Amino acid sequence: MKSKISPSMMCTDLMNVEEEISVLEEVGVDYLHIDIMDNHFVPNITLSTDFINAVRNKTSVPLDIHLMINNPEKTFHLYKGCNKQDIICIHYEATKHVQRTLVMIKKLGARVGIALNPGTPICMIEDLLSDIDIVLVMTVNPGFAGQKVIPSTLDKIERLRKLLDQAGYTDIEIEVDGNVSFENAKIMREKGANIFVGGTSSIFNKDASISDNCKRLKKIVGY
Amino acid sequence: MKSKISPSMMCTDLMNVEEEISVLEEVGVDYLHIDIMDNHFVPNITLSTDFINAVRNKTSVPLDIHLMINNPEKTFHLYKGCNKQDIICIHYEATKHVQRTLVMIKKLGARVGIALNPGTPICMIEDLLSDIDIVLVMTVNPGFAGQKVIPSTLDKIERLRKLLDQAGYTDIEIEVDGNVSFENAKIMREKGANIFVGGTSSIFNKDASISDNCKRLKKIVGY
Amino acid sequence: MKSKISPSMMCTDLMNVEEEISVLEEVGVDYLHIDIMDNHFVPNITLSTDFINAVRNKTSVPLDIHLMINNPEKTFHLYKGCNKQDIICIHYEATKHVQRTLVMIKKLGARVGIALNPGTPICMIEDLLSDIDIVLVMTVNPGFAGQKVIPSTLDKIERLRKLLDQAGYTDIEIEVDGNVSFENAKIMREKGANIFVGGTSSIFNKDASISDNCKRLKKIVGY
Amino acid sequence: MKSKISPSMMCTDLMNVEEEISVLEEVGVDYLHIDIMDNHFVPNITLSTDFINAVRNKTSVPLDIHLMINNPEKTFHLYKGCNKQDIICIHYEATKHVQRTLVMIKKLGARVGIALNPGTPICMIEDLLSDIDIVLVMTVNPGFAGQKVIPSTLDKIERLRKLLDQAGYTDIEIEVDGNVSFENAKIMREKGANIFVGGTSSIFNKDASISDNCKRLKKIVGY
Amino acid sequence: MKSKISPSMMCTDLMNVEEEISVLEEVGVDYLHIDIMDNHFVPNITLSTDFINAVRNKTSVPLDIHLMINNPEKTFHLYKGCNKQDIICIHYEATKHVQRTLVMIKKLGARVGIALNPGTPICMIEDLLSDIDIVLVMTVNPGFAGQKVIPSTLDKIERLRKLLDQAGYTDIEIEVDGNVSFENAKIMREKGANIFVGGTSSIFNKDASISDNCKRLKKIVGY
Amino acid sequence: MKSKISPSMMCTDLMNVEEEISVLEEVGVDYLHIDIMDNHFVPNITLSTDFINAVRNKTSVPLDIHLMINNPEKTFHLYKGCNKQDIICIHYEATKHVQRTLVMIKKLGARVGIALNPGTPICMIEDLLSDIDIVLVMTVNPGFAGQKVIPSTLDKIERLRKLLDQAGYTDIEIEVDGNVSFENAKIMREKGANIFVGGTSSIFNKDASISDNCKRLKKIVGY
Repeated sequence: MKSKISPSMMCTDLMNVEEEISVLEEVGVDYLHIDIMDNHFVPNITLSTDFINAVRNKTSVPLDIHLMINNPEKTFHLYKGCNKQDIICIHYEATKHVQRTLVMIKKLGARVGIALNPGTPICMIEDLLSDIDIVLVMTVNPGFAGQKVIPSTLDKIERLRKLLDQAGYTDIEIEVDGNVSFENAKIMREKGANIFVGGTSSIFNKDASISDNCKRLKKIVGY
Repeated sequence: MKSKISPSMMCTDLMNVEEEISVLEEVGVDYLHIDIMDNHFVPNITLSTDFINAVRNKTSVPLDIHLMINNPEKTFHLYKGCNKQDIICIHYEATKHVQRTLVMIKKLGARVGIALNPGTPICMIEDLLSDIDIVLVMTVNPGFAGQKVIPSTLDKIERLRKLLDQAGYTDIEIEVDGNVSFENAKIMREKGANIFVGGTSSIFNKDASISDNCKRLKKIVGY
Repeated sequence: MKSKISPSMMCTDLMNVEEEISVLEEVGVDYLHIDIMDNHFVPNITLSTDFINAVRNKTSVPLDIHLMINNPEKTFHLYKGCNKQDIICIHYEATKHVQRTLVMIKKLGARVGIALNPGTPICMIEDLLSDIDIVLVMTVNPGFAGQKVIPSTLDKIERLRKLLDQAGYTDIEIEVDGNVSFENAKIMREKGANIFVGGTSSIFNKDASISDNCKRLKKIVGY
Repeated sequence: MKSKISPSMMCTDLMNVEEEISVLEEVGVDYLHIDIMDNHFVPNITLSTDFINAVRNKTSVPLDIHLMINNPEKTFHLYKGCNKQDIICIHYEATKHVQRTLVMIKKLGARVGIALNPGTPICMIEDLLSDIDIVLVMTVNPGFAGQKVIPSTLDKIERLRKLLDQAGYTDIEIEVDGNVSFENAKIMREKGANIFVGGTSSIFNKDASISDNCKRLKKIVGY
Repeated sequence: MKSKISPSMMCTDLMNVEEEISVLEEVGVDYLHIDIMDNHFVPNITLSTDFINAVRNKTSVPLDIHLMINNPEKTFHLYKGCNKQDIICIHYEATKHVQRTLVMIKKLGARVGIALNPGTPICMIEDLLSDIDIVLVMTVNPGFAGQKVIPSTLDKIERLRKLLDQAGYTDIEIEVDGNVSFENAKIMREKGANIFVGGTSSIFNKDASISDNCKRLKKIVGY
Repeated sequence: MKSKISPSMMCTDLMNVEEEISVLEEVGVDYLHIDIMDNHFVPNITLSTDFINAVRNKTSVPLDIHLMINNPEKTFHLYKGCNKQDIICIHYEATKHVQRTLVMIKKLGARVGIALNPGTPICMIEDLLSDIDIVLVMTVNPGFAGQKVIPSTLDKIERLRKLLDQAGYTDIEIEVDGNVSFENAKIMREKGANIFVGGTSSIFNKDASISDNCKRLKKIVGY
């Protein structure tokens, strides 16, 4: 499956986002990953629905909206402008009516993602495969940038790829989020992931330019 | 009491905040008002703790942090860099242990604010006067920009000013937030408010430049 | 102020509601009182939004919808058919944004009611007077039929009437709900209530017919 | 396993329930399905505990009580009159102590049901088989009548039947609820379901009489 | 009004409670104050319902049970053995149906107390006076021993005493809890309190024996 | 794997804990099991963090802290004194971020336990094996002493032991809690458990001394 990269916008310079987007557009990225947190599902608040709208007005790069919020469906009226290249991704753990919520995303016109916390087993999505386009495997616990990858989540990618393929869902993509460093991205690719959220350990690593980091990450994941 | 203006940062161009801050610095503002929402206390998410830190790195203008979140004390470890000119303002309705939370703000080293929803009577703060520096009177229901002022909140300002003065707390300031237009600001000033949060109906009104709007607002409130 | 009676539909024969409504229509009642509970704000569940719609299809008697539910605004999309004679009444204790919720009722096109639990002091509605048409004084704790009146709530009616009149809101009506027996109704009338919710201790008292009970109640409250 | 039909009482004429029950009794049904919602577990409120009691006073048809409410055990004191033909069914997702809650139902003297949302995998009930009589497979998301069946839930019935049989629990019945139309009922029967909740797409379909619809549904499911 | 002392059992040696009770019995105390916390209403857990029962089996000193827990009525079935000298005290802030909860305490056969957090104004209990025997004024925020008194709570005692007396409730007692040191107790007595919860700053002060501390405290409060 | 016994301290004489600990120390036990409840995750409150500290000051026997509380991580700052022999055990059902919480326990310096309610399937811990030292299988529903073992939980022990061994985690221990009587302990040992929480049905059985009961239990579990 084609590799894609999705820079984590919470790692950009929040004072000059327009400029950062230009750099990302120029080097070429597949998505802009936007984390929405609510201080309840995770203990932090980062970007916002206003931010989503402001980004969309500046660029045609598809958005990869990751909702780390309880009862995410309550906010769906705020994303009405999304198009069919955008991803809206909710957490399995964030609602008791996950299938209904996934269908609501489809009705919004976006690609449908479901995220799994590190401690959530992959069997939980068994009955949801026909409703999703992407599984987001959290490789750290959601809520903060700058954490170390949880080793058991790497095997989880492999088991998930196998489960999806065996069930005949070879076109469901696997996204990884959390310490997707240059080293880890390589392993994650081998295990079966194909969408890579890049944060402070790759795309926004201070040791090189964003542009060079993107190129290096792309190369590593066989772009 | 000296009038002060506090532009609402949720109304800035989120793609170019640095530039907007420069304009505000140049024309001279007393605070930068930063709204933090959690999609639970209010049905929206706007700015973030990362945003607060990014702003502070760019400017020495004091911050006016307005927490529209449940159990705000859980986020206090994220504002450790605040200085004694900054305001941290919580909502009376957001915690069952409001006096404890106010004391925690004082310990953080910031000025202490308490906000009242339009439907919350002023008698609720009767036992909190010795713990606060500012009362924020919401003149619209919190959560969104662009609403119309609630007429009954204007009288509330007057009754609050009277209550504070009669109790000997003449130095507690009254801040107003919500449709602080040029017209409304004048009335609010007369009723006793002295800190004015300016949003889309004044400072960020599209009919003039931010700079001109600030000057006009200042003039109106007797700056 | 004109007295009105509002039979509590949770006390009707739920197996033959149409017939019961006919009786009530014939004898003449001002409202049909419909209690909606959610097992969270109060520990019980009674009537429903489907029931409201079914009743409306049978009769033109105005509905008096009493929402004993948390965050009542979440259900407002279900009452879109209400007309301007209907009352929608929420509890002060059921939402942190009570003024916003009252305004939403007005936008639905209904008369606006606010209910107070027996333990909630009347000063809580001080800033809401311009947003309401009716105050519902609970004279028992909400949740169940068949309770005894709480004596302190009778004086509360009187103090409330006085507060409303002194504030110039002489046209705000006072509704009473809870053990509105023939005896109690008389006292409640004298104290200043004018809308009477009749349940098992008056209109649905088994000692006489519904029709006779209505007539007796009307007479007592000076109809 | 013997097929059974369970008309959904939320689809009856709520103004004339007694009459509707007579029709159902005459044609012969196995259960009366009563949905209890709390506006928290699902975003709706329908029938009530008072309704349950009123129905029981009119008929000896066993009741099939489906609790779509959080912490259902809090309401169990209200169903004390249930007999050993009645079903009380809770949702797996509605309590953290599901085994305890199932045992409490057994102690009430009723048959024990557990319902699974469309997105809940069947492995979740692995340790509960000795505590239950019925698994209710939701074939739409709970909360409203009139939805379309979710295709993946049909296979789920088959996998569930297999799981139950392999574990030696051949006598646990499978109930289906949600768009059990004449067409779908046939498939559901083939997959292994044997209790059919009939709503607007079969028993209460407006194209024929309730009586004829019941007969047709019975025939389809091999009654 | 007669002064009474109520040693805080969370300050005893939890490994040898029987011995500590003997000392307290010998010197003579009016109550044993038992704090029950739930880690939700307050961020701590201390004593327990098992502890209450164990204490009662050892002594006939009346218990003064202070419930710092949400929805306290859910635990009332655990205190069935209380007698009419015991106090059960709930927090105003801990339930939306405070009058109902107070009546439930009366039905348990105990004396009825209502506690107010430092930030809760005294007007909140205006409609509850006929349902209570004691008002517990928290002079620190509940949850932990060893805090400093909040100065504004001292005036609150005086205002409360006045409110009670003017309303004709001269027999309602005022209890104080939180840093009731020898110095503070004197002031609290003068302001109108008569039940004194003694913790680490008086009865369990390490500088003297429990017995001597009790005697000193009694003397100070005019026992 | 070596058998260990862990007496349940909620079954000791709470008035004379020091004495009880001496007896347990003398006869030799591996842990002291301390149950912390919050009246929310389970409907009861028992021991406390103060109790933990008091016990630690009296003995060097390792503590086996069983947290039956929601969001247990909020209390971790209270257990800072724990050493690397102590167990801190949380419930899978008590947090949405279980992997993060387990890592926090490891950072506290304690052994890491995860507890499963009777209705929670063992597949839920599939991705957590590298983060834990102990799985606590609840053999009754948590919250109260004196319940009967749930038969299906005995097989669960066996399936869990097999799962752990097959995954190469032969050193993860299995603890059992709930009606660990002399009879049941034998079976539990055979199924694969090796840490036995002893309560009223074994160690604190009134038919013999604590000392004799410990000896008998040890013998049965092949100590």
